Amino acid sequence: MSSTPLSSAIILARPQLGENIGACARVMCNFNLSDLRIIAPRDGWPNEKALDMAKSAKHIIEKATIYETLEEALSDIEFLYATTVRPRYMVKPVYTPRKAIDEIYKHAHHKSAILFGPERSGLSNDEIALANAIITVPVGSEYDSLNLAQAVAIMAYEHFMIAQNAPHDHMPLGNTHFASRKDIAHLLNHLEEELDNSGFFFVPQKREHMRRNIRNLFARTHLTDQDVRTLRGIIRSLAHRATNH
Amino acid sequence: MSSTPLSSAIILARPQLGENIGACARVMCNFNLSDLRIIAPRDGWPNEKALDMAKSAKHIIEKATIYETLEEALSDIEFLYATTVRPRYMVKPVYTPRKAIDEIYKHAHHKSAILFGPERSGLSNDEIALANAIITVPVGSEYDSLNLAQAVAIMAYEHFMIAQNAPHDHMPLGNTHFASRKDIAHLLNHLEEELDNSGFFFVPQKREHMRRNIRNLFARTHLTDQDVRTLRGIIRSLAHRATNH
Repeated sequence: MSSTPLSSAIILARPQLGENIGACARVMCNFNLSDLRIIAPRDGWPNEKALDMAKSAKHIIEKATIYETLEEALSDIEFLYATTVRPRYMVKPVYTPRKAIDEIYKHAHHKSAILFGPERSGLSNDEIALANAIITVPVGSEYDSLNLAQAVAIMAYEHFMIAQNAPHDHMPLGNTHFASRKDIAHLLNHLEEELDNSGFFFVPQKREHMRRNIRNLFARTHLTDQDVRTLRGIIRSLAHRATNH
Repeated sequence: MSSTPLSSAIILARPQLGENIGACARVMCNFNLSDLRIIAPRDGWPNEKALDMAKSAKHIIEKATIYETLEEALSDIEFLYATTVRPRYMVKPVYTPRKAIDEIYKHAHHKSAILFGPERSGLSNDEIALANAIITVPVGSEYDSLNLAQAVAIMAYEHFMIAQNAPHDHMPLGNTHFASRKDIAHLLNHLEEELDNSGFFFVPQKREHMRRNIRNLFARTHLTDQDVRTLRGIIRSLAHRATNH
């Protein structure tokens, strides 16, 4: 019951109100989470209202890490879960909070993060495309979105409920590891560069949509280090033949 | 399991802040609860701050019933569950939120209520003595009490989860389908052919092992028709550049 190192990061993308950031920190503290990452907070940083609202969780606000972009915040993250209320029509598993925490628990030896969008608009499709899976808290009506800190509360509560049990990782990885988000970002950049060179995106209006489809495909797969090396080798091999001619 | 009219009342005993009452109403609405009862609100009633904070759940605030004492609020209630953070050393079952909702569900044809105390002090022992059972949301430390609306959120969420009995995951496919094994075989053959052409398998002894790694990678992913088209386009594009030179 005591020694589980299950501890996911909470990432707030572009949060608007300091009060909400503080309330998130407080409820994280209630449920033994401490790794708070904030991307481009609207009102800058530090934020007095966040500190006030955090009450006894001021240390979480003070240690929160601030990033310009989601990619930077993900450098050490192996599994990313994106929360959203609206259906996004991406081919990606959609979990309830409980099922998502089950998944996090199955991969307890890997670093997971749960991503929350800004209060008004939620996450962008580009942000969601980076996630392994989507979490949707089931609610009575999609028009009545959950308050940000309430959504964090429910995820943190489910996290705590399961963290009290011991983990059992069931994915045999042998000598390899799940690829870091950084390695996956490099892979995707490499691929897109070569695709640009080869004229893959020949209809400019479709470029973004096609890019997102590709990113979505690889985010859904749990790529290992070995997979990333293999895929980069494939890209290099196909592109290398081109440059030799 | 689907058509249960499970709907419990939420009772707030002597709440202090209108904002918290409003936030409770909002999260009740999120999770399809509507019967809000309030005992002796500190700042009187109606309360503008409660209305403001309720957002799209103003109807729950407007229909809330106000009482002088807990006994009056309970006239039609058959099962009462009292929430508390501190242990009270009463001989009474202490449930987690999930277990409590299981109990409520077992008695779905009886009217249940969940009782929450004031922000600062929690319920009095006399109030708790009226309950059938105690609910304690497990938290990391009992000194960091949950915010009132957060506690209501967690109970309402558990209530909704069981009232809905909803599946825990799904994969939205939109207009696409999972690719057939035949299409995946064609994709892999296409890829391997191009890799042979480009000299990817330059160490013959490693060829089979590398081929298996690649096949394994794509077998693990649930590729859709669209994914297969995208991947074939990628291969064609990279290889096409080669043949053009």
